[in-house]
Amino acid sequence: MNYFSSNFKLGILGGGQLGKMLLFDTRKFDIQTYVLDPSDEAPCKIACNKFFQGDLMDFDTVYNFGKQVDILTFEIELVNLEALEKLENEGKKVYPSPKTLKLIQNKGIQKAFYINNNIPTAPSKTFKNLKKLVVDIVDSKLEMPFVWKCTEFGYDGNGVKIIRTLQDVENLPNVECIAEKMVEFKNELAVIVCRSPSGEIKTYPVVEMEFHPEANQVEYVICPARIDDKVAMKARAIALDVSKKFNHVGLLAVEMFQTFDDEILVNEVAPRPHNSGHYSIEASYTSQFENHLRAILDLPLGNTVSKVAGIMVNLVGEDGFSGDVVYENIQKILGWDGVTPHIYGKKQTRPFRKMGHVTIVNEDINKARKIAEDVKNTIRVIA
Amino acid sequence: MNYFSSNFKLGILGGGQLGKMLLFDTRKFDIQTYVLDPSDEAPCKIACNKFFQGDLMDFDTVYNFGKQVDILTFEIELVNLEALEKLENEGKKVYPSPKTLKLIQNKGIQKAFYINNNIPTAPSKTFKNLKKLVVDIVDSKLEMPFVWKCTEFGYDGNGVKIIRTLQDVENLPNVECIAEKMVEFKNELAVIVCRSPSGEIKTYPVVEMEFHPEANQVEYVICPARIDDKVAMKARAIALDVSKKFNHVGLLAVEMFQTFDDEILVNEVAPRPHNSGHYSIEASYTSQFENHLRAILDLPLGNTVSKVAGIMVNLVGEDGFSGDVVYENIQKILGWDGVTPHIYGKKQTRPFRKMGHVTIVNEDINKARKIAEDVKNTIRVIA
Repeated sequence: MNYFSSNFKLGILGGGQLGKMLLFDTRKFDIQTYVLDPSDEAPCKIACNKFFQGDLMDFDTVYNFGKQVDILTFEIELVNLEALEKLENEGKKVYPSPKTLKLIQNKGIQKAFYINNNIPTAPSKTFKNLKKLVVDIVDSKLEMPFVWKCTEFGYDGNGVKIIRTLQDVENLPNVECIAEKMVEFKNELAVIVCRSPSGEIKTYPVVEMEFHPEANQVEYVICPARIDDKVAMKARAIALDVSKKFNHVGLLAVEMFQTFDDEILVNEVAPRPHNSGHYSIEASYTSQFENHLRAILDLPLGNTVSKVAGIMVNLVGEDGFSGDVVYENIQKILGWDGVTPHIYGKKQTRPFRKMGHVTIVNEDINKARKIAEDVKNTIRVIA
Repeated sequence: MNYFSSNFKLGILGGGQLGKMLLFDTRKFDIQTYVLDPSDEAPCKIACNKFFQGDLMDFDTVYNFGKQVDILTFEIELVNLEALEKLENEGKKVYPSPKTLKLIQNKGIQKAFYINNNIPTAPSKTFKNLKKLVVDIVDSKLEMPFVWKCTEFGYDGNGVKIIRTLQDVENLPNVECIAEKMVEFKNELAVIVCRSPSGEIKTYPVVEMEFHPEANQVEYVICPARIDDKVAMKARAIALDVSKKFNHVGLLAVEMFQTFDDEILVNEVAPRPHNSGHYSIEASYTSQFENHLRAILDLPLGNTVSKVAGIMVNLVGEDGFSGDVVYENIQKILGWDGVTPHIYGKKQTRPFRKMGHVTIVNEDINKARKIAEDVKNTIRVIA
C-alpha cells in the first residue's frame, strides 16, 4: 500500500488535541486524513484534509464516515462500537480493533479480562447499579474505603470517586459500577506499548506520575521514572503482556501502580495516544503519535528510546476563570532552556479544562524537574 | 501582544515546504496564519488558517495580503519588495525587513555589502549585462575559470555556472551578473543565525555540506560539521557578525567556504529557514522553524544546541521520472533507527524536483553517517 502523497485516506474519529498532535505526523508524511468530530471548533479542523462534523456515538454517522476511508482509527474511546464492528465485518481495517475496544470501553469487562488473563490488578467487584453496591456496604460485604468507578463513559477523573463513608455514595449516578480495593502505592506508573498488525511490538520507557504532596492531583509526568531498573523492567514486561493479550494494534497506554513491596498492578488502559506519552514529542527518537501512525499502517515501528529526559506539565484552566483564554507568563517560560508549550487551540477556558501542556527536556532529569516546577508556578491559564 | 489562541494573525508569503514546516510550530502554539502562494496545490494550503492564491511578485496582491495581518514574514525571497516597503512604511511589522531583503535579493548588492562591511568573501566584479562581461573576458581583464551568477531571481543552483572557456558563456541570459573568483575550498559550511527585533541573537552549530566525490552535488548536510573547534568558532562569529550588520530579524542562513588555509569566506545568505537547518527538527532542542517564529514575534529564542547528531539527505525526483510520485523503499528506511522522512506533499515528481528530505539522528555521528548513506542508496523518488 502506498500511503505517501497518494489517494490513501486515514480516518480519525475524534478531532481533539490527540488527533491534532497525530496530524503533525500525517502532515510530515503527507498522508491524507479525514476527521470526524462533533465540534465545529475541533483542534483538528485545520491540518486534516477533510473535516466532518458529526456525533461520534451515532451509528450512521460513524458508519458512513468509515465507509469513505481506507483505514480507520480513533483518538477517543467514546465512539459507536456497533458501527466499528459492522465496518470491520465488512472488511474495513479498524485499528485498534472494535474487539479490543469492547474489552476496554467497559471497566467491568476490562477488569474481568485482567483476571481471566492472569494480569495483576487490584481486586474488585462489579455491580449492576448503585443500589446493589449500597446493599453490599450495608451488609458489610464491602469494606471501606474503596474506589468507586462507573463502568462506562468516565473520562479524565469523572466517574471515579474514593468512598470512605456511606455519605460519599450520595449523588453518585445509579449506573453500573465497580468497587475496587484501594491500593496503597509508592508510585503511579505508565508504559506505552505500540504494536502493529504484523505483530511488531515495542514499549516506551516507564513514566512516573508525580503527585502534588497535598492535593491528590498529578503534577508531573516524568520520563524516565525514577525507579529501580528491576521494577521498570517488570512494568514494561507486564505492559507488553497486556498488549499481546488484548491482541491490540496501535498504541496502548497501560497505567499501573507500584505497591510498597514493588508489585505492579495494572490500573487501566487507554487504546490510543495518551497524556502520559506527550513528553515523547520532544524527548524520544520517535513520538508516540508517529508510532501510532506507523503501527496502524503496519509500517516498521520507530525507536522508542529517549534522546534526553522529558517532563510534562498539563495546562488546565485556572479555577475561577471562564472565557477567552490568556496564557499568562507564557513568554517568560519560553525563555527557559528546553521548554516547549503546546497550545491545543481551545479558544475558551473553563476551570480545569485541559488547554495544553508544556514539555521540559534536559540531559539532566533533575534540572528538568526543577525547570518543570518553575513552569508550573509561573504559567497560568486565565481569561 | 497575545499571540496564543488569539485574534493575532501572522502572514506568510510563500506556501512551499519551508512554510509547511513553519506551520507545525504555529499550530503547536495555536497562532493564526494567513498564507499567500501562487499554487492551488501549495504544501501550506492545509494547516494554515486562511489560504490566498496569488502572485508573490504582484504589488497589489502582496500589499492587500499584508494589510490583513499583524506581522508579515516570507519563506521565499522572490516577493514584491515595493509592497513590503510600503507596508513597513505604513507601520506594518515586516520581518525580515524589506531593507535587509533589498540588500540580499540582488547578489551584486549583497557582495558590495560584504565588502563595505569588512565581511570576508571571495573577490568579484559586477556587470550590467552579459555583453560587458564578455568584453572583459576578451580583453583578458577576467581570468578563467570563474563563477558566473545572475544577480537576481536565481534559485537552487539556477543562475550559477562555472565558466572555464568562452564557450561556457553561450546560452547564458543577457542579464546583470557577477563574476566571482573560484575559491578552492576544503569544506562548504553553513551557520543559521536567529535574531529578534529586541536584539537577542543565537547561532546554531556549524553544519557541513558533504559533496559527492564525483558529481558536484551536496549529498549530506551534517551537524555538527566535522571540523576543528577553532574553525567552527570562527564561522559562528562571522555569521553572527553578518546578521548584526544586516540588522536582520528572523533566521539568516549564512553559507560559507572553509579554504585550505582555514579562512572563512561568506558565500551567500538566505533570510529565512534553510535547507541546511532541516536537521534541527529532530536533532535540536529548538528547531530552526520554531526559532524563526520566536524571533519574528520577539519571543525569547529557544536553545540552538543539539540533543544528538543529525544528518539530512534531500529527496529529489529521480532523473527520467515524471508524474504521480512514488517513494520507493520508504517503508524499508522507516525500519532503521533514527530515520525520519519528510514528504513535502507535491503530488507530481519531475527530475531533480525537491520532494522531501530525510533526517537521520543518532548519538554517534559516524553511525548516523553510515545510516544516511544507506538511506541515500535505498529510497528513490520515482513515478
